[in-house]
Amino acid sequence: MKITLIGSGNVANYLATTLHSHGHSINEVFSRNSKTGRALAKKAKSKFIASSSNLQLNSDAYIIAVNDDEIESVAKTISLKNKLVIHTSGATALNSIKKCSSQYGVVYPLISITKNNKLLPANYTVCIEANNTTALKKCKQLAKCLSNKIIEVNSMKREALHLSAVMVNNFGNHLFAQADKLLTQNKLELDLLYPIINQTADRIQKESPANLQTGPAIRNDKTVMKKHLQIISKNKLLSSLYKSFSKSIFEFNKKK
Amino acid sequence: MKITLIGSGNVANYLATTLHSHGHSINEVFSRNSKTGRALAKKAKSKFIASSSNLQLNSDAYIIAVNDDEIESVAKTISLKNKLVIHTSGATALNSIKKCSSQYGVVYPLISITKNNKLLPANYTVCIEANNTTALKKCKQLAKCLSNKIIEVNSMKREALHLSAVMVNNFGNHLFAQADKLLTQNKLELDLLYPIINQTADRIQKESPANLQTGPAIRNDKTVMKKHLQIISKNKLLSSLYKSFSKSIFEFNKKK
Repeated sequence: MKITLIGSGNVANYLATTLHSHGHSINEVFSRNSKTGRALAKKAKSKFIASSSNLQLNSDAYIIAVNDDEIESVAKTISLKNKLVIHTSGATALNSIKKCSSQYGVVYPLISITKNNKLLPANYTVCIEANNTTALKKCKQLAKCLSNKIIEVNSMKREALHLSAVMVNNFGNHLFAQADKLLTQNKLELDLLYPIINQTADRIQKESPANLQTGPAIRNDKTVMKKHLQIISKNKLLSSLYKSFSKSIFEFNKKK
Repeated sequence: MKITLIGSGNVANYLATTLHSHGHSINEVFSRNSKTGRALAKKAKSKFIASSSNLQLNSDAYIIAVNDDEIESVAKTISLKNKLVIHTSGATALNSIKKCSSQYGVVYPLISITKNNKLLPANYTVCIEANNTTALKKCKQLAKCLSNKIIEVNSMKREALHLSAVMVNNFGNHLFAQADKLLTQNKLELDLLYPIINQTADRIQKESPANLQTGPAIRNDKTVMKKHLQIISKNKLLSSLYKSFSKSIFEFNKKK
């Protein structure tokens, strides 16, 4: 397919490279950020467009890969008649782009895409959705370039998946960052924790996480929790996080 | 060595099996819980003792493997003269058991040990500490049965390691449990998230987690965060956790 990319961030860069390597051509790159936009257009051997009014109608698909909170405002500025328009967001409803065109869909890669991320895991989940079967078929064709694991889900299910992904990835990564900081302050290295980090991720793939909970919070061990809060007493945000976790773990497991 | 185990929970069970398989013998099992105590004694081909006053002085090491908040109270009830006494807690200071004996130490396995946990990762970190070199040597000898990665750290560093482990394991596992529940409510399976869970754990072993943060909180994307909070609005504890995380992620990364 001939593709127009709208956006020039991490996802747009990833899509440009991946779709190109699967034989699709990047026709245009439209971005509000002319620096990253021009760089991506150059990389994708494509044309850079600075204004939505210059968008050509000769592409087969228009992929909006911008921050979630900008999708609607970008969508309002473009009119693509019956051309397929797609967004890539986990948290944005399908119909938020319905005014752009008569054909629209979603291709949401359920994975964390960062700037320097060269290798992504194989077979991560790609969620697709569209307003008709023709659009869905094209979404599937593009999704296949990203992964073999494609599921069709409605916007509500996709939003639940996105929130879950935010919890296990964004929140999980923040816990690693906080642990790393605490260890550095104590002249210790994060690599001491790699085995327990791997264990935590591995074992829930064999048994339900609800059955694997250990630690002071589930035992309501106040002595240990008090000590932990003393260690991080200067860090109010982390202390607040620690308290929210302890409460949530205790209540969650009491209800079981 | 001839070993007396004090406690009959997950850690005591793990130590009994592992130390026995490395040629040490379990001499006695003392536990306040006679059911699990008798079961462990039977499994370890050992003698069950219901009262601390019946403890024999013919073991080479006495390992206190009880809940953190019970270590001091157990330690107060026993007197072991110059016999080596060891606790296995990450969160308890070395000197909390100093009244039991003239020789005391810590062997803390920095890993999550659950009841049905048969396979633990190789080379997880074992923290050791003791009040003199003789005791430290024996702690090392026992620690070697658990893992090849042994580090000598003082109580303060061990407590920081324990808190870090609680964050990445206990808190991380709770995030998995919450994600699992949310997905089940939406008729989706946790296995859709396995690739992103593995990705989150893998990539911080190549790059600092502080450089890998993505998601709505770091971008301060209020639209997405509001939507997420709507999805979990009936779950007050999870909502509170979500808010604490979003604030902590934003502030943490702003300071960078």
